Amino acid sequence: MNEIVDFDSILDQYKVVFFDAFGVLKNYNGLLPGIERTFDLLKEKRKEYYIVTNDASRSPEQLAAGYHRLGLTEISHKRIISSGMLAKEYLDLKVPGGIVAYLGTPNSAHYIESSGLRTLPVSAIDDRNVHDVTALLFLDDEGFDWCRDLNKTVNLLRTRTIPVIVANTDYAYPTNEDKVAIAIGGVAAMLETILGREFIRFGKPESQMFMFAYEQIRKRIAISKKEILMVGDTLHTDILGGNKFGLDTALVLTGNTLPKDLTSIIARTGIIPTYICESAVVNK
Amino acid sequence: MNEIVDFDSILDQYKVVFFDAFGVLKNYNGLLPGIERTFDLLKEKRKEYYIVTNDASRSPEQLAAGYHRLGLTEISHKRIISSGMLAKEYLDLKVPGGIVAYLGTPNSAHYIESSGLRTLPVSAIDDRNVHDVTALLFLDDEGFDWCRDLNKTVNLLRTRTIPVIVANTDYAYPTNEDKVAIAIGGVAAMLETILGREFIRFGKPESQMFMFAYEQIRKRIAISKKEILMVGDTLHTDILGGNKFGLDTALVLTGNTLPKDLTSIIARTGIIPTYICESAVVNK
Amino acid sequence: MNEIVDFDSILDQYKVVFFDAFGVLKNYNGLLPGIERTFDLLKEKRKEYYIVTNDASRSPEQLAAGYHRLGLTEISHKRIISSGMLAKEYLDLKVPGGIVAYLGTPNSAHYIESSGLRTLPVSAIDDRNVHDVTALLFLDDEGFDWCRDLNKTVNLLRTRTIPVIVANTDYAYPTNEDKVAIAIGGVAAMLETILGREFIRFGKPESQMFMFAYEQIRKRIAISKKEILMVGDTLHTDILGGNKFGLDTALVLTGNTLPKDLTSIIARTGIIPTYICESAVVNK
Amino acid sequence: MNEIVDFDSILDQYKVVFFDAFGVLKNYNGLLPGIERTFDLLKEKRKEYYIVTNDASRSPEQLAAGYHRLGLTEISHKRIISSGMLAKEYLDLKVPGGIVAYLGTPNSAHYIESSGLRTLPVSAIDDRNVHDVTALLFLDDEGFDWCRDLNKTVNLLRTRTIPVIVANTDYAYPTNEDKVAIAIGGVAAMLETILGREFIRFGKPESQMFMFAYEQIRKRIAISKKEILMVGDTLHTDILGGNKFGLDTALVLTGNTLPKDLTSIIARTGIIPTYICESAVVNK
Repeated sequence: MNEIVDFDSILDQYKVVFFDAFGVLKNYNGLLPGIERTFDLLKEKRKEYYIVTNDASRSPEQLAAGYHRLGLTEISHKRIISSGMLAKEYLDLKVPGGIVAYLGTPNSAHYIESSGLRTLPVSAIDDRNVHDVTALLFLDDEGFDWCRDLNKTVNLLRTRTIPVIVANTDYAYPTNEDKVAIAIGGVAAMLETILGREFIRFGKPESQMFMFAYEQIRKRIAISKKEILMVGDTLHTDILGGNKFGLDTALVLTGNTLPKDLTSIIARTGIIPTYICESAVVNK
Repeated sequence: MNEIVDFDSILDQYKVVFFDAFGVLKNYNGLLPGIERTFDLLKEKRKEYYIVTNDASRSPEQLAAGYHRLGLTEISHKRIISSGMLAKEYLDLKVPGGIVAYLGTPNSAHYIESSGLRTLPVSAIDDRNVHDVTALLFLDDEGFDWCRDLNKTVNLLRTRTIPVIVANTDYAYPTNEDKVAIAIGGVAAMLETILGREFIRFGKPESQMFMFAYEQIRKRIAISKKEILMVGDTLHTDILGGNKFGLDTALVLTGNTLPKDLTSIIARTGIIPTYICESAVVNK
Repeated sequence: MNEIVDFDSILDQYKVVFFDAFGVLKNYNGLLPGIERTFDLLKEKRKEYYIVTNDASRSPEQLAAGYHRLGLTEISHKRIISSGMLAKEYLDLKVPGGIVAYLGTPNSAHYIESSGLRTLPVSAIDDRNVHDVTALLFLDDEGFDWCRDLNKTVNLLRTRTIPVIVANTDYAYPTNEDKVAIAIGGVAAMLETILGREFIRFGKPESQMFMFAYEQIRKRIAISKKEILMVGDTLHTDILGGNKFGLDTALVLTGNTLPKDLTSIIARTGIIPTYICESAVVNK
Repeated sequence: MNEIVDFDSILDQYKVVFFDAFGVLKNYNGLLPGIERTFDLLKEKRKEYYIVTNDASRSPEQLAAGYHRLGLTEISHKRIISSGMLAKEYLDLKVPGGIVAYLGTPNSAHYIESSGLRTLPVSAIDDRNVHDVTALLFLDDEGFDWCRDLNKTVNLLRTRTIPVIVANTDYAYPTNEDKVAIAIGGVAAMLETILGREFIRFGKPESQMFMFAYEQIRKRIAISKKEILMVGDTLHTDILGGNKFGLDTALVLTGNTLPKDLTSIIARTGIIPTYICESAVVNK
């Protein structure tokens, strides 16, 4: 019923490909062996691509530099759409000034800054500056003391009515073959439960990620949704989001979704990819 | 802290206005008295507008005809963006053929149909056609027998792995000054709980609604999000959705949100409108 | 890892057995073939038993009469503990007078009545008696018009601050080999979602069910929890509830839990029965 | 509608009183001024009492010693029922041997130990002992490194199918007049969200807490539920739990529930105390 097809054979049918990053192009060991062949083929066939990733830990420039270091020199930062960019757009449009308190590394906060906005780690918020805090941002699971700073965040949100933005909705991410780490989206969920309110979450499966990439591509070429393929390893972010936005979708088995669980998880969730492929690596 | 400002005074700052329908332009009694003055002013000042509504019970043409009957002849069906249109786009892009089973009135199903697709009420699904069902659609809370057809739907979804689309995410809608009715989004939520899965939901606060309107307007004029105001009566659909999409937002007090609850509900939910106004009716 | 053992062999280790009813003793076809042998053996070995069932549609007397009609004449109504009995105890203790509005059949309401309390179907509540309503009761999925009476219930609960009791927490129950019906607990969940509040729910896995049976048995013999086995077909009601109450538990595969899903569902939910048996039917 | 009555006047109607601890007898500043008068009166009138508290950080003996140090020498450890005791009973009955991994202080783990069971902080679990871990216990929000040990816990639960017990269901507790701290129940909720499963939670509002106290008192005197009053400061634990167990309930305004929110929160949650009192301190 859930037949596995060749990635090469379906690539030909689309003009544009959106790729998830982790579990599709790379994993905890680095690049997927042979993935550079896929990008060579895209170039040869003059197909466009975007990388659509739930990642707010670094800027698109830094993410692209990471691929370059691993040997995938093809990837331009202009082709990377991250949930962090959506968070930045929100701040640009909706938070005109003041201090944005954040949970994450200083590096993750750096590229979020814009004219008029100052970022400050939650740990540096005190009685003198708390009244200038105009937004709170969940950026990265590293860079802060969970116990101290999460308690501080709960109390900050009990006294100040401000928008709270979660720049990466993922709950966890794999760190090696059988271990995961709690992502900032999982940490944010704890505070949502405790405070009894929902934060503003950016990232797949929400349409805004896809729309952002779709707008970029349409500035350059005339294209319809029918001509775009979304490739991902996770049913409830990549595939659900791609489907809902109206794209065809290909699930690859190099990341979160294990071949043995495939049939039962599709039946249970009702999230149905257009295709299932072993991986996004092409044969030639 | 949550100061109430004049709608006239803020209208001047924007080139485009998105209006919610129910609770903003009309209610169970018909049009809001004086709302035609608002549309006269928009015309006079050459401002553009869209009506962005969680409604899948009728087509934009039928919704516009409704306004005309009430005396608001200004409103063109081209200015109406409904969650039903998103559901239709999904079917057009993602469901190439077969039967779409639905819960709702025949009228609500009619405009969803497109070439290659046939709609059939859940009540008419039987052993002969069940294997041709390629999607299930929640359209309207009327037009079916809740007990019989919801039980039938649960069993349909236990045997067939198909996409399920909820064309209106609202849980309830007001039917008079102090009564509400359960909306199809609330009915769908029951089935999600029982089946332990999430359906594909179209409607505010999801960005797709706003993106649809934003794309329409940008086909005609160059505009940025900064120049658009979203006006709504409900914090967790209109205002949350508008905010998240990056628009300025105005909450009006002629619908779901009662003046007495204002301060406590904003503090509790953390959903903060840019402005609060008595109503969307202008003074002159 | 999840080894299947013989029911006969484990029965010997316990003085008292609690049985779930549906999926363990009977199903949509009637009694499980051979189940009378189990009760013969219990009698012969002088072991005590109770039937602990999420059922509020009939009184223990009526439930016992049902077993008698099917040929299991051994079962006394005194050995049946139902979630409906807990609902009745709640009304006796906490609702001293007035009208209890209910959703269900007249028969399900009948045995809930007690001195001072009058029951009335939601459909019969009107402007004259609404102010005498002191509680609302979800009893059975039959006996009312879902659309009309659920809408009426939502509006009743928006105006009257009264306790709401759900007398059966189950979401669904099987009606034949591959069909289920939505249970009153599933219907109640829809209204909890729409109203944003939680009702008072009686039934497994909550401890109160087990405590009720435990109190009954301890009136007659000295017994510790170590000497009681809970037998059920559903992990998240029978087994979770039995475990949490401190009982040893046996999962049988004659009802809700399919042998093929066993390993994955135990790993996913973390609900671990002490034993797994084909069925509660003994060999001799 | 929600009239405030004198605590003295209602005390006379009951033979036994169950008290919540935090927010009723004491707060972050120590004992509530005058609360010793309440215990003097109980003694004089020969009424029985129990303290029913969601607390797993210390043993009943240590909790009683805490009251003695504050000057409330009346309180015996035999009168203290804690959620930690329920967790201990569970381990005694259901976990026959091996290592119980825990999150909390060594002190909180100490009294949970029993013959055959060894406790070990999550931080001390390694490749050599992980296969002997037979249960996981959430005890206290202190005593561990949140980031390191919560990540370790997620991975432990992905590989080992073992029961997980949360010994205190509270999400947060007040630390001074306007600050709270995240409780271990809130931390556990994050891991439930990330892992997609529910843990075994002990504490109010679950009936097991009340049943435990009820069983204790009935060993000593014949009493019915009608003769017991539950006194608490929190609607969704003390009052909901007391109501559901069938007790009369008194909400006091010296803790979590603020007088200004009283009417709206009761209407919104539908949790209705039998009485509302300023405090549990009697006048004479």
